Amino acid sequence: MQNDKYIEILDTTLRDGAQGEGITFSLHDKLAVMETLDELGVAWIEAGNPGSNPKDLEFFRLASSLKLINAKLCAFGSTRKKGLKASGDSQLLSLLDSGTEGITIFGKSWDLHVNEVLKAEPEENLAMIADTVAFLKTEGRTVIYDAEHFFDGWNSNREYALSTVKTALEAGADCIVLCDTNGGNFPDAVAAAVRDVIKIMPDTCIGIHAHNDSGLALANSIAAIQAGCTHAQGTLAGFGERCGNTALAALIPSLELKLGLRCLPEGNLVRIGELTRRVAEIANVSISDDMPYIGAHAFSHKAGMHVDGILKTSRSFEHIDPAAVGNERHLLMSEVGGRSAIAERVKKIDPSVNKDHPVVISLAEKLKKLEAEGWAYEGADASFEILIRRELGCYKPLFKIEAYRVLSEHPASENIACSHAWVKILVDDKYEIAAAEGVGPVGALDSALRRALSRFFPALEKVRLEDYKVRVIDGNEATSARVRVLIESTDGHRIWNTVGVSADIIDASRAALVDSIEFMLMRKQE
Amino acid sequence: MQNDKYIEILDTTLRDGAQGEGITFSLHDKLAVMETLDELGVAWIEAGNPGSNPKDLEFFRLASSLKLINAKLCAFGSTRKKGLKASGDSQLLSLLDSGTEGITIFGKSWDLHVNEVLKAEPEENLAMIADTVAFLKTEGRTVIYDAEHFFDGWNSNREYALSTVKTALEAGADCIVLCDTNGGNFPDAVAAAVRDVIKIMPDTCIGIHAHNDSGLALANSIAAIQAGCTHAQGTLAGFGERCGNTALAALIPSLELKLGLRCLPEGNLVRIGELTRRVAEIANVSISDDMPYIGAHAFSHKAGMHVDGILKTSRSFEHIDPAAVGNERHLLMSEVGGRSAIAERVKKIDPSVNKDHPVVISLAEKLKKLEAEGWAYEGADASFEILIRRELGCYKPLFKIEAYRVLSEHPASENIACSHAWVKILVDDKYEIAAAEGVGPVGALDSALRRALSRFFPALEKVRLEDYKVRVIDGNEATSARVRVLIESTDGHRIWNTVGVSADIIDASRAALVDSIEFMLMRKQE
Repeated sequence: MQNDKYIEILDTTLRDGAQGEGITFSLHDKLAVMETLDELGVAWIEAGNPGSNPKDLEFFRLASSLKLINAKLCAFGSTRKKGLKASGDSQLLSLLDSGTEGITIFGKSWDLHVNEVLKAEPEENLAMIADTVAFLKTEGRTVIYDAEHFFDGWNSNREYALSTVKTALEAGADCIVLCDTNGGNFPDAVAAAVRDVIKIMPDTCIGIHAHNDSGLALANSIAAIQAGCTHAQGTLAGFGERCGNTALAALIPSLELKLGLRCLPEGNLVRIGELTRRVAEIANVSISDDMPYIGAHAFSHKAGMHVDGILKTSRSFEHIDPAAVGNERHLLMSEVGGRSAIAERVKKIDPSVNKDHPVVISLAEKLKKLEAEGWAYEGADASFEILIRRELGCYKPLFKIEAYRVLSEHPASENIACSHAWVKILVDDKYEIAAAEGVGPVGALDSALRRALSRFFPALEKVRLEDYKVRVIDGNEATSARVRVLIESTDGHRIWNTVGVSADIIDASRAALVDSIEFMLMRKQE
Repeated sequence: MQNDKYIEILDTTLRDGAQGEGITFSLHDKLAVMETLDELGVAWIEAGNPGSNPKDLEFFRLASSLKLINAKLCAFGSTRKKGLKASGDSQLLSLLDSGTEGITIFGKSWDLHVNEVLKAEPEENLAMIADTVAFLKTEGRTVIYDAEHFFDGWNSNREYALSTVKTALEAGADCIVLCDTNGGNFPDAVAAAVRDVIKIMPDTCIGIHAHNDSGLALANSIAAIQAGCTHAQGTLAGFGERCGNTALAALIPSLELKLGLRCLPEGNLVRIGELTRRVAEIANVSISDDMPYIGAHAFSHKAGMHVDGILKTSRSFEHIDPAAVGNERHLLMSEVGGRSAIAERVKKIDPSVNKDHPVVISLAEKLKKLEAEGWAYEGADASFEILIRRELGCYKPLFKIEAYRVLSEHPASENIACSHAWVKILVDDKYEIAAAEGVGPVGALDSALRRALSRFFPALEKVRLEDYKVRVIDGNEATSARVRVLIESTDGHRIWNTVGVSADIIDASRAALVDSIEFMLMRKQE
């Protein structure tokens, strides 16, 4: 299918997504999400509301010095305050200060909101829309106008709702986005309203912004695009207020693979699962296994009849080729799919190995067992390589931790930190003991371990921990549940990731730290 | 809205739902799910495939002696084998043996499947359908005919697809169900095909069975019903092959509240969240917080502008009244929330406070500062209440931790766990010291603290930690980054949540534990 017609995608993970319960991004997180979305290649990244909180303001200051490859940034705010001049509204000035190429402005379309929430005359609301858009246009920005509650407004008072978007367009808005803010509308109503708008403003960029309160955000976005919208908003993983926004990771594959529309730079669709997972990881949220297209179960076949059909012809039980979205098929009765992936990894160390090699079969078994215990190697390449080398018999540990003690105390004594660690290691036949202090117990253990090892391996002094993540695997066991620790390390040139699992957070961290050091020393020796 | 027109609901949690990855029901589980579905009041419970596994056969034997109030049971199987007589096919005989009032039979509609999977002549497939349905009808059963892959078949060879359902109807089928087995179709195509079928068989019970591979199962079910279907299949929580089936917990509220259709006995809709959670609990799966209508976040409002609007008129940001589905509204405390949400919470303690009260203004400031440091109160109501009481000046700590020490060691000594803790507390003017061991350092500290306090507060013995979450806030600071700990506690009756933040995981856990204990004791005193 030739993808000629282009749909402009705006991702609002950093704004509407951050309004989802349980989603909190640090400044560093926001920059990492921005880079991930740019890598995927959406057209716009709506990155925050600088008027609502100081973190977003700081974010825009930092972001302005970074170069994006595919995407453009936009800041989000509302029409000017009642009774103020646009040029005298501090919220609008903070939007300009954010320095983004685009500015999204939301305004009221629903008479209920104008009367009861804004408490303004209908005419005043129109003036607020017109003044705001015109002011930002004279400042040279691209203005995306979000018509909040458009569909509810259109149902309640069609004439007035249409007059609000006409006002925004006439004031210079570059795109008119129709929002189902409460997520309560059905696809047939959405399509009818979109057609009605297009009738009065043909050749305009019309967009859709849908919420999932009725489980119809995706369907409403598709219906709107089929009715003529050329701009679609959502969040990659579906985060957002209440039940979330349209999940772009589910929308984009449908548009590109089924409707012949183009959303991303050529070749990027296969990365959508990986990059969505990265955004979710940054938010410390899991992607649901049954998520369309990219979920771990999206191409898992369990019923015997289905597995049988799939082996005869894949189309029989798969609506698309999983590879088109970078996913893969899992036949739950056999490990055929899993072994191919493992063999690919083992080949990098021993090219003679294929998927029926005993090492691959045994690794597949081991992986299943380890994953059931809570280990996850998806984000821990270095630990997985150590696992492979161990299985191939070409792994020799370079050191051993004989014993350690970590003490945390409160209150801290005057001249010592809250946590201190002591560790005894063995390298060949030599022992070494070292101690260190730290802010927390893991930091103290890390320092002590590096200090003891650096006598034998001076190169370790260059290694730094870049990132440290903890996830409780079985929440319902409370503090004696298993935790998974993921560590990202760097020597200034490369980055590698390791994992550790234990009921004891210190022990899980120890496992990930040891893998990280072993991996670095192993690479050094080669 | 008067709900006159009735939509017959068939729940297939126990059959298609059990084909979902990670879903396994024991015999006892299956009976419990059946009772739950009956309590909700669906019309049909499709409870298993007696031909495919012995557990289902045993289930039907047990179920036949139980009396259902609202629902009828049906067993699921396929058309007779190629070349056999219907009366001589053991699979069909096992369906009859199951003794259910209804039998669901699936047959092929898609020529691709007939040719490449079934490897049968098109005419032979029609004969298999006709024979099977007619045989079961002569045995006096209600026959629900599932036209597998109907929409793909209709797209590929419309005439043939239509001839399969016509054959089933003429053989006596009571209901013809059109299935989007691969979940790849869009609502417009589904509606068109349904209308096409209804044209050739008006006044027939036509049903819809949709899968969620494109995220459109709900939308396809609604489109089919709007086009004339009067029977809908799905699973209460959305379980099923790959990305799952239509989630009935999301479909039924849309049908009853928005389309004026009747699905459940009067008054049962308010129980749909509770009963869906029970089914999920039995399957040992969590209901996603952002699930439409019934999710924990479905009516959670976080952005300040939304909270402000909701307090003026609930319709402004809610598509339905949460009480209609037994859910409730939550106003979240966060940096993007405003003073209105804070004021609502403070009012519960001091009703005289409004959003311009100095305490509210000061709390809003404090919240912004704390969130910038990594604290998050949206999942920690109890910690937030303590914060409010502190600000109101009506909080008096009931105990103080004077000092603690936590030691983690490796290897563990023979008779002691890896972690042990020692804690000294002060209650009024009395000191108490206690020690405990644990698998990890936090567990050890928790035990020691409770032991010391239980001398003064025996009620603490009933408190248990339900859930423990750790989140590293600024990953790039590695092991000296701040961590946020969230703790869920229970005394067997209520559940409350607290938060702690520190660069030291032990200290962050200590803060959340102390809040949890203080909150419990405070409630006890009132």
